[in-house]
Amino acid sequence: MKSGGEKGFAEWQRHFAELAPGLATYYWADPSFDRAQADYALVWEPEPGALAAMPNLRCIFSSGAGVDHVVHDPAFPKHIPLYRMTPGAAAQRMGEFVCWAVLHLLRDGPRIEAQSREKKWEEFERPSASEMRVGVMGLGALGARAAEMLVALGFQVAGWSRSAKDIAGVESFSGEEGFAPFLARTDILVCLLPSTPATRHILSAPLFAQLPRGAMLVNVARGAHQKMEDVIAALDDGTLSYALIDVFEKEPLPQDSPAWTHPRLVVTPHVASTPNKRERATHVLHLIQEIEAGREPPSRFNPETGY
Amino acid sequence: MKSGGEKGFAEWQRHFAELAPGLATYYWADPSFDRAQADYALVWEPEPGALAAMPNLRCIFSSGAGVDHVVHDPAFPKHIPLYRMTPGAAAQRMGEFVCWAVLHLLRDGPRIEAQSREKKWEEFERPSASEMRVGVMGLGALGARAAEMLVALGFQVAGWSRSAKDIAGVESFSGEEGFAPFLARTDILVCLLPSTPATRHILSAPLFAQLPRGAMLVNVARGAHQKMEDVIAALDDGTLSYALIDVFEKEPLPQDSPAWTHPRLVVTPHVASTPNKRERATHVLHLIQEIEAGREPPSRFNPETGY
Ligand SMILES: NC(=O)c1ccc[n+]([C@@H]2O[C@H](COP(=O)([O-])OP(=O)(O)OC[C@H]3O[C@@H](n4cnc5c(N)ncnc54)[C@H](OP(=O)(O)O)[C@@H]3O)[C@@H](O)[C@H]2O)c1
Ligand SMILES: NC(=O)c1ccc[n+]([C@@H]2O[C@H](COP(=O)([O-])OP(=O)(O)OC[C@H]3O[C@@H](n4cnc5c(N)ncnc54)[C@H](OP(=O)(O)O)[C@@H]3O)[C@@H](O)[C@H]2O)c1
Repeated sequence: MKSGGEKGFAEWQRHFAELAPGLATYYWADPSFDRAQADYALVWEPEPGALAAMPNLRCIFSSGAGVDHVVHDPAFPKHIPLYRMTPGAAAQRMGEFVCWAVLHLLRDGPRIEAQSREKKWEEFERPSASEMRVGVMGLGALGARAAEMLVALGFQVAGWSRSAKDIAGVESFSGEEGFAPFLARTDILVCLLPSTPATRHILSAPLFAQLPRGAMLVNVARGAHQKMEDVIAALDDGTLSYALIDVFEKEPLPQDSPAWTHPRLVVTPHVASTPNKRERATHVLHLIQEIEAGREPPSRFNPETGY
Repeated sequence: MKSGGEKGFAEWQRHFAELAPGLATYYWADPSFDRAQADYALVWEPEPGALAAMPNLRCIFSSGAGVDHVVHDPAFPKHIPLYRMTPGAAAQRMGEFVCWAVLHLLRDGPRIEAQSREKKWEEFERPSASEMRVGVMGLGALGARAAEMLVALGFQVAGWSRSAKDIAGVESFSGEEGFAPFLARTDILVCLLPSTPATRHILSAPLFAQLPRGAMLVNVARGAHQKMEDVIAALDDGTLSYALIDVFEKEPLPQDSPAWTHPRLVVTPHVASTPNKRERATHVLHLIQEIEAGREPPSRFNPETGY
């Protein structure tokens, strides 16, 4: 195991000890731990080559959402099942954050906040959700739940994914031919795609140019999805009117990033959906149970599609 | 008519001219206007005694939500039907704002914002909506819609009103005997009561003491509902952990109000639900139509209950 360093490990170990007293857990770098014997690995940014050097491994679990931190290792053992971290609580939390983010831009939360700091009382009007078309890119576990919640708030919601979807109240667009019409009808774009070679830097100038002028952007998926200089240029020339971004190519976001200070860009520190360690430990134990019972949990990484 | 001064009147007149070309509209203070002839009055804070001096008046329409600005005039002609401003769009907008406000406190929007201003990247955990019990005081047109939308977001929702209600997913508490149990189960309290003698200063120390320690408060109804010094004392001693307030006894909120600078109080400038003049003019014309057809629209003020 390697996740959150030795201090983080102590917390994981406590949860596992309480939830599954029979399970032996070891810290990755513990000298008394014989890596060759490990059945399961729970990992975050494992050292390149380390997983490939574990002959007994039956499965790998990502300790956080996304698996890019594992599969970017050229030596990553593709034949060993790799599972994404998808506790049910994660989709609910993400949906709540997306609703907050979209309403925050819709109601101009940054203006409310700036006025308040200047003790300026100035009422202003904003459109209603029913006048706004939200587009969710990626309708996996997270995107689908977010889309449903946005429908309940009264937004006009569409989604875009590889395969067509049937979600109540959500217009489905799919594949390459669905991309342009999806963008053309989207006032607020929410990215919940996985990070793959096909989606890298998808949030860049050519995409922004296909949105209605002054559209808003919310990225809560992965930093690799956006080309930050294009986001800033689009905000500066009015192609985009607002952006709220939770994920960055380099995290923590560097002090000299122009994102910190841009008046029409809201930075949030990767807090959209962080199930706590207890929820994640419970989920890992559930996965182990399923696997040992011979079933295949749905959150398995597919090396062919890259997610 | 008196609403928004002469400049505001010009906009009203334009909408009425477009929507109902046959209707003659006059600005209140126009010297050529014979008040004695007026059939209908659309008003905001009319001069005391002015409405009583209009013998021909068939109905009075409030140009904004609430009617306290009319009925506090001792000379207010109680026999003339007075209608509240309740376009359907108002409930939807209010629901959106309440969802934003509750999520903003839940996810600690003020902390996100403060960290960002200091370029401080610090991830943190917050509870999920499913762990939070929201209580909505007042389940009228606005409160009922807000409660429904909060249910859709995954919150545990209850409401409190004079008469018991049956809203899907919303636990109903009513009357005086329902008050204490309603407060005891409420982590986030949302006020959507009308302003009446019975509800004046209801948001004060005795109420806060009945909430779970560290509860949060959202007031989007009327400034008269809160005792501001009690709100601030409750925030300071931890009885309340957060408050978001959109309405104040004196608006604009005076420069020297401690509300502006309190770190755990979010001030919003009465923007929760402001249907635009077009939507309101449309609603007034709808009311006139109903009344002239001999029907009684439901938004009529009842002098007995005070709302
Ligand atoms: N900010 C945070 O706190 C946070 C927390 C958790 C997760 N995340 C991120 O959220 C994202 C979504 O997670 P998830 O678990 O919902 O992912 P998922 O279940 O793997 O869903 C991926 C979705 O994207 C679609 N998709 C993939 N490649 C596509 C392409 N090239 N073109 C069009 N659609 C494509 C898929 O289409 P099909 O349905 O047709 O396969 C699917 O609908 C991930 O990037 C994850 O890392 C962020
Ligand atoms: N901030 C803004 O931008 C904004 C915009 C619009 C409106 N507002 C304010 O929002 C508030 C709600 O408006 P609305 O149109 O929804 O009001 P409404 O339709 O008159 O509803 C009032 C609700 O409060 C309940 N109630 C009244 N007196 C009560 C008492 N003494 N004890 C318990 N419950 C009581 C009523 O119970 P019953 O159902 O049993 O009668 C009803 O459910 C008003 O104060 C309005 O001024 C604010």
